[in-house]
Amino acid sequence: MDIAILGTGRVGGKLGPRWAGKGHRIVYGAPEVDCAEVRKVLEESGPNAAAASVREAAAASQVILLAIPWNVTRGVIESLGALEGKTLLDCINPIKPDFSGLSPDAAPSTAEEIAVWAPGAKVVKAFNTVSDATMGNPRYGGQKASMFFCGDDEGAKQIVRQLTDDLDMEPVDAGPLKNACYLESLGMLYIHLAIFGGWGGECAFRLVKR
Amino acid sequence: MDIAILGTGRVGGKLGPRWAGKGHRIVYGAPEVDCAEVRKVLEESGPNAAAASVREAAAASQVILLAIPWNVTRGVIESLGALEGKTLLDCINPIKPDFSGLSPDAAPSTAEEIAVWAPGAKVVKAFNTVSDATMGNPRYGGQKASMFFCGDDEGAKQIVRQLTDDLDMEPVDAGPLKNACYLESLGMLYIHLAIFGGWGGECAFRLVKR
Repeated sequence: MDIAILGTGRVGGKLGPRWAGKGHRIVYGAPEVDCAEVRKVLEESGPNAAAASVREAAAASQVILLAIPWNVTRGVIESLGALEGKTLLDCINPIKPDFSGLSPDAAPSTAEEIAVWAPGAKVVKAFNTVSDATMGNPRYGGQKASMFFCGDDEGAKQIVRQLTDDLDMEPVDAGPLKNACYLESLGMLYIHLAIFGGWGGECAFRLVKR
Repeated sequence: MDIAILGTGRVGGKLGPRWAGKGHRIVYGAPEVDCAEVRKVLEESGPNAAAASVREAAAASQVILLAIPWNVTRGVIESLGALEGKTLLDCINPIKPDFSGLSPDAAPSTAEEIAVWAPGAKVVKAFNTVSDATMGNPRYGGQKASMFFCGDDEGAKQIVRQLTDDLDMEPVDAGPLKNACYLESLGMLYIHLAIFGGWGGECAFRLVKR
């Protein structure tokens, strides 16, 4: 797959190299291509990755991962031009700066807001309930971390299933895009437990079954 | 402990017998004491359980489990008289009748609403993210289901930790009562997965760690 990764921070900088290692072609979209953070992630990604402007990266790819802060998301999306038919993976957790809760300007969910800003795009909420440590190593003993996702387009969800398998996580389909609010709450719960509950980032939710 | 269990349905009818079996004294509070549902749960609970009116059950106990439908909760609480100093365990999931989402009249959370209706009570959100099947048998292979809870009173949370251990689940402290909205979202996510996602009730969330 051709995947544009917008944002080279903790999330984009972790998922990109792992997918590149699986043979996907990654284009990192960054406001400044020649900077230390982008050079580092390119080095970690090997021969399957390149960097470009945010707009060029998105134009080149059918799958676009949004790994950017919530407060710049609308501006970035509006700068991308037409996104019809593209798959947008929203892994944003719209957390208040003091980590005390979800930002009220993201109601009902960032994913539904993004779907309004990008008409015709196939939005999937995904990868927002696992830490970057878990993205790097999703195994907990013999078990895989669960990765919850939701969206309204079955084809786009199938892409997310494949990308989740490629990370060695277990995909869990959480239903339609209107359920994104529950996944954003789950992301917030995770962040609370990690930062204030003493769990740190080396933990993950798993849906166990008999 | 003396525990009043208000509601003898799937949740109260599962937790009561298990706690009674651990030596806690259970009083089931029901509008009608001499009915098949109450007789059944008393039979399952053994010698440590009794039944009484809702008001009498609450008056007799320092710990009160609310296992009643959300739409009757305010009326029930207002009928109980003074609840100052008592520990109220809110395991309510305020789900719409068609299971399509959380009821908007429970914002920000049932737990915070209940805290307003019961001044001086120590409210803990608990036992709302596990199925009755998991309450009956919390083991998934060698692993315990996680039970997420939150509240503002440390003593009340310690009671919940003990009652969770008694069920053989793993207690996970999710912070202050204002985080109840995240646990109610998690309860909704569970219900979605169980009913619409094909998972059924024989599954549970677990927080795994390295």
